Amino acid sequence: MQIAVIGTGFAGRTLAAGLADRGHDVVMGTRDVAETSARTEPDRMGNIGFAAWAENRPPIRLTTFAEAAAGAELVVNATAGHGSVDALTAVGASNLAGKVLWDIANPLDFGHGFPPVLFVKDTDSLAEQIQRKFPAANVVKALNTMFGDLFVHPEAVADGDHSVFVSGDSAEAKRTVTDLLASFGWTDIIDLGGLDSARATEMLVQIRLRLMNALGTPLTNLKAVR
Amino acid sequence: MQIAVIGTGFAGRTLAAGLADRGHDVVMGTRDVAETSARTEPDRMGNIGFAAWAENRPPIRLTTFAEAAAGAELVVNATAGHGSVDALTAVGASNLAGKVLWDIANPLDFGHGFPPVLFVKDTDSLAEQIQRKFPAANVVKALNTMFGDLFVHPEAVADGDHSVFVSGDSAEAKRTVTDLLASFGWTDIIDLGGLDSARATEMLVQIRLRLMNALGTPLTNLKAVR
Repeated sequence: MQIAVIGTGFAGRTLAAGLADRGHDVVMGTRDVAETSARTEPDRMGNIGFAAWAENRPPIRLTTFAEAAAGAELVVNATAGHGSVDALTAVGASNLAGKVLWDIANPLDFGHGFPPVLFVKDTDSLAEQIQRKFPAANVVKALNTMFGDLFVHPEAVADGDHSVFVSGDSAEAKRTVTDLLASFGWTDIIDLGGLDSARATEMLVQIRLRLMNALGTPLTNLKAVR
Repeated sequence: MQIAVIGTGFAGRTLAAGLADRGHDVVMGTRDVAETSARTEPDRMGNIGFAAWAENRPPIRLTTFAEAAAGAELVVNATAGHGSVDALTAVGASNLAGKVLWDIANPLDFGHGFPPVLFVKDTDSLAEQIQRKFPAANVVKALNTMFGDLFVHPEAVADGDHSVFVSGDSAEAKRTVTDLLASFGWTDIIDLGGLDSARATEMLVQIRLRLMNALGTPLTNLKAVR
């Protein structure tokens, strides 16, 4: 599948690499290609510069937001939540129309320190904001409930026996994302319903951060037992 | 232990019965004893009237909010979240001072239909509101993350292999609640930290309701895998 990953941070890189490793034709999109390509210093989260990372991943091309999405069948929003609508606006509505728009971002506001607060919650979600802004895209929310290390390696925790949640208004788009998740080894993929169910998963940010502190590792996730 | 359960709905009854069954001296508190005692009709959630329920539970005495708490070492807030501060005000600050105040309520607002929204969230919690209102009580939040059926029967799902979260500012009060949870068979009791971590667990209401719909049963809970 032709896939564009918008955003070059840790989450975007991890998912892009996982998709490329499974044979997909992955392009990454960034605001300023020259600037991102030249980045050798670690970011403020301690992740190595994009240039250093990309050296080991020759099959993944880096281009502009718009060009990356133009040729893609599926577009991943892996930008920081507070900048997602702006970034997708730069991608362009026409480059998203009719496509699966897989949103893995969370509506985090770090303006008040740590832990971050949610700039939208409970009665609305970032996923729904994106869907309203780009009504011709088929937004699917998934993978926003865990740290990137687990995205394409669910087996890294509890032999993979934990859950990933999928929300969206298009059954076909959800099926596409579900198939990709299954290709990473996810076995407990739970369809939560319409895109408004993304409110529930975006609100899991707090429990995730608290669990990381309580358990002493980001390698944790939730399993919906029944 | 002398325990007062404030609130006579399904959650309060279930926890009161479980505590009585383990040999504790349990009293239930209600606003209007005569009215609650005479209630034979099911409530709007379909639970049988208090009178019918209490017939099979002679050891659990029903009395006023204040009298129930006066003689208790531990007080459970099992009232509906929107009325919790009022109910606890009727209990009386002096009847809560120095005691463990185990809060199992959630800040649900059903005024906008279903699913309910949270009237406090993200930057504050019901548990913290209660703690600020009753600063001499030792508020502990726990059991607010699942349906009442599981409170004292964790084994009813996945052989009990799932999590219950405990939040509070008093280590001693958390230990008391943790011991009671363990007596019900809970094995994965996670201390999330200070009472502000109750924000994280109160915000789980949405995922719980979505999972109930998606999985077709309220007999579900979360396990923090690691």
